Amino acid sequence: MSFYDVVHRRRDTRGEFTGAPIPSDVLRRVLTAAHAAPSVGLSQPWDFIVVRDEHTRRAFRDHVNAERSVFAAELDPRQAELFAKIKVEGILESTVGVVVTYDPDRGSPAVLGRHAIADAGLYSVCLAIQNLWLAATAEGLGVGWVSFYREDVLRRLLDVPQPLRPVAWLCVGPVDRLPETPDLERHGWRNRMPLDDVLHEERYTRRSGR
Amino acid sequence: MSFYDVVHRRRDTRGEFTGAPIPSDVLRRVLTAAHAAPSVGLSQPWDFIVVRDEHTRRAFRDHVNAERSVFAAELDPRQAELFAKIKVEGILESTVGVVVTYDPDRGSPAVLGRHAIADAGLYSVCLAIQNLWLAATAEGLGVGWVSFYREDVLRRLLDVPQPLRPVAWLCVGPVDRLPETPDLERHGWRNRMPLDDVLHEERYTRRSGR
Repeated sequence: MSFYDVVHRRRDTRGEFTGAPIPSDVLRRVLTAAHAAPSVGLSQPWDFIVVRDEHTRRAFRDHVNAERSVFAAELDPRQAELFAKIKVEGILESTVGVVVTYDPDRGSPAVLGRHAIADAGLYSVCLAIQNLWLAATAEGLGVGWVSFYREDVLRRLLDVPQPLRPVAWLCVGPVDRLPETPDLERHGWRNRMPLDDVLHEERYTRRSGR
Repeated sequence: MSFYDVVHRRRDTRGEFTGAPIPSDVLRRVLTAAHAAPSVGLSQPWDFIVVRDEHTRRAFRDHVNAERSVFAAELDPRQAELFAKIKVEGILESTVGVVVTYDPDRGSPAVLGRHAIADAGLYSVCLAIQNLWLAATAEGLGVGWVSFYREDVLRRLLDVPQPLRPVAWLCVGPVDRLPETPDLERHGWRNRMPLDDVLHEERYTRRSGR
């Protein structure tokens, strides 16, 4: 796949995982790509925890189900009906979970480029996540980012010490296909916007109907 | 370039910009790649402001210079000496600035996947930034993320309304080369860590010497 094919074929996968093994060299290339991301002050403030254990994954899945209900209870009836059809995680069906954390102490105290923007370290972690996601796509794997969880619950489950923060649980593994259309669009939850709606020249321009 | 070539050749560029024009179809492909990033609840909570105006760029550069001095004043003498040699921005030398902002109201109130993690929207914006960075690399352009600024200053400069947050000023443009080694490593500020130092199996494992 060419670079742009990878970018545009990448999808958030939930229902497509086959559970087949990931060859260790493939997983290594994907994690190496993540680790090659840029980071503020070259702090590389991420850690990657590869979770295979069934017990851990079931415990996390149960927590995610509970948080799914919390969100569902906030919705109006039309949204609730749509949401009921939407799968939000593939924790058990995927081959591994990759939990990505942020360590604010890495490279501290003088992290070059972070004195004015405390969140810059967190931003770096997300750049690594996108590298991982694209590399997995290039390898024919699916990735699904699960965000229906409380950070403290995930921190305790994986012995992640303070002040580290879990940033993502990524479901990773072979898929039977990568869907053409995002699940949320297919289910009528929300449609993608045209680029021109978010593009501005020189200054931010307020637009109606957004 | 293959996908992995793009990932591993990407660099944070500051001193390498030539100021040559970016063909409009190239910039469009790069921004289209950014806009193809995944986002929590398909909220696509980003905006891209392309800044070419010299007056705006000078004003921002002056602010960044002032913030550079703020950071320099925090350093011990050894670090201060190293830091004095490090270029932190290519605002005027690059062809355009692309300012990326986060709009927490996009798709609100019920953003699917954000109820438990308020920062999830901000994370999405960073995924778009990494797509932009890699696409620019694939096009032979350099990108330099400037983070020596106060959000309120940049917000006022570009008329970005509350509650939007500027997330990055990206210097983008043709470069005479992409360095092999990150600037901060070349200057002895900090070295990249091996992947195995940040890789864990099943649970987070505390390690010494980090």
